[in-house]
Amino acid sequence: MPEPTPTSVTQIPGVFAAHATLAEGGTGCTVIVCPKGATGGVDVRGGSPATRETDLLRPEETVQVLNAVVLSGGSAYGLAASCGVAEELERQGIGLNVGAGVVPIVSSACLFDLPVGDFSSRPGIGEGAEATRRALASQGVPLERGCVGAGTGCTVGKLAGPERAMKSGVGECVLCSADLVCGAVSAVNALGNVCDPDTGEAIAGTLSPDGTRVADACELLLDANERSGFSKTAEENERANAARQPAPRTNTTISCVVTNARLTKAQATKVAQMSADAYAHAIRPTHTTSDGDTVFVMATGDVDAAPDVVGVLATRALELAIADAARSAWGAYGLKAAADL
Amino acid sequence: MPEPTPTSVTQIPGVFAAHATLAEGGTGCTVIVCPKGATGGVDVRGGSPATRETDLLRPEETVQVLNAVVLSGGSAYGLAASCGVAEELERQGIGLNVGAGVVPIVSSACLFDLPVGDFSSRPGIGEGAEATRRALASQGVPLERGCVGAGTGCTVGKLAGPERAMKSGVGECVLCSADLVCGAVSAVNALGNVCDPDTGEAIAGTLSPDGTRVADACELLLDANERSGFSKTAEENERANAARQPAPRTNTTISCVVTNARLTKAQATKVAQMSADAYAHAIRPTHTTSDGDTVFVMATGDVDAAPDVVGVLATRALELAIADAARSAWGAYGLKAAADL
Repeated sequence: MPEPTPTSVTQIPGVFAAHATLAEGGTGCTVIVCPKGATGGVDVRGGSPATRETDLLRPEETVQVLNAVVLSGGSAYGLAASCGVAEELERQGIGLNVGAGVVPIVSSACLFDLPVGDFSSRPGIGEGAEATRRALASQGVPLERGCVGAGTGCTVGKLAGPERAMKSGVGECVLCSADLVCGAVSAVNALGNVCDPDTGEAIAGTLSPDGTRVADACELLLDANERSGFSKTAEENERANAARQPAPRTNTTISCVVTNARLTKAQATKVAQMSADAYAHAIRPTHTTSDGDTVFVMATGDVDAAPDVVGVLATRALELAIADAARSAWGAYGLKAAADL
Repeated sequence: MPEPTPTSVTQIPGVFAAHATLAEGGTGCTVIVCPKGATGGVDVRGGSPATRETDLLRPEETVQVLNAVVLSGGSAYGLAASCGVAEELERQGIGLNVGAGVVPIVSSACLFDLPVGDFSSRPGIGEGAEATRRALASQGVPLERGCVGAGTGCTVGKLAGPERAMKSGVGECVLCSADLVCGAVSAVNALGNVCDPDTGEAIAGTLSPDGTRVADACELLLDANERSGFSKTAEENERANAARQPAPRTNTTISCVVTNARLTKAQATKVAQMSADAYAHAIRPTHTTSDGDTVFVMATGDVDAAPDVVGVLATRALELAIADAARSAWGAYGLKAAADL
């Protein structure tokens, strides 16, 4: 009897995932664990990233396994959640065997959700450990989606200020081609709008002034430029540039692609690079100076597959996961979600 | 009286551009010259690039000017055209002043068009010098588009072999927002299909078996994977992987964004990275292991502009230039073009 087709990354053999959510604080973290160690890759493409353990994922560096990817809220503070993940994995004996014990390899990227809920609330050691315990008990249980985990405080469409932004969350999609499986989990906190990757239609983003529909984000940026343009003096130009520049460093979409493909670190890196195209397909604009956009890849190595095939399938899974993040969110913290329009 | 709105990069002050075409050989080169030196940036995102003078464009390296970008056919052999560009610029006294003379800074990327026309025909020193002389006389004369220059031997849609590929070429688009101008020149030789960035509809790419329409390239790749999937032995897997993998290193889309914005090298690099999203918008799939996709940026420094605004406008100009490359090509070398469907 054939295996049932997986619909969540937790149904991919060797992959475990769960969230910890600080609902009142408006933040949380999402942990994807491969206890046996996946082959890892990463692509950091945004201008304002907050990451840890990304350097060792480079093809030329020694370590060949990646035990967990942590997607976290809390901006750079949220990197603390990864410490809790590492501690919990150590308690479970999961990690690189270094003789006297194990060292879990935990890569992470964070997104900026501090103004949502409580500025002082950030995922820490406790939330990292909690999400890890839940993940290790998650086998086959579909991952929750929406305003949970790293998606708890996610917002999108911040080009006209926070009051016209919309609520987003964490989304997921798993696709198969023959025996190849590619899943993607994405916490979408973009400066730009999330749009349907097939039609280009906006799902969530910067609201129109009357709050009834999503405005065109690229047009908003260029309109602001038109209004502030044709400046003459250096001082006028400085003011104009401030007006042209969206709120800095307050965004970021972070994702993890999980596949059962057998990839080298170099191939996993290439798949991460290709998967970043999913951001271009589903977020407009993306990869701005204010987005710390990052994509991790975890490959469990169970089936042979050409990197381009994995890249194409992963890109498709990730663009649908991004759309899912916007569609599965609900209104919260005074912000509307796609479901409210 | 306001300046007329530029419709070609040659109408941007300080920017000169032209082609040299080896029509019979099925190759050529395109040169964009900024005699006074632009601020340069580059993004190399494909898996099989052929480039020169890209390292010195990194923000931390010393040289602050870029005199010319050469887009060339001829695969790695085509880098020779840049030597001719440098020699001609020296004759004109254009380049970095090093006391006893000048050293022109010439960055270049090449695309693989060897099987089109004559395999042994490649743009060399003569073509580089010729294109440079034409460029310096080009002020205000719109750049030619279609099967000329670096676009002479361009093809797209090579997932089902060369006999189902289509002819592409070199395209261009210039857009303005207030006093900011962003132009893009692109020679499109992609493995994937070129599609309309607004509708997603295929313009040119892998033909259907009956040659009447463009097939879905991502579907083709995944279908091939399905057919070769579910393999069992290592040997079977090796054969299956060969079937899954498209023809290697025979593609590449290379582009140059030209803007009158005042950018630092770091900002120009960021704009190049953002502009690479245009490939994701207009080519499916793109950035594969068989595409040496590269985007250069030349910024002449005449107007202040926020990098994100430049990035958004440049991305839009480049995706329209890519579509233009497919639309402006004509059937040649036994291949159909979009105009023939």
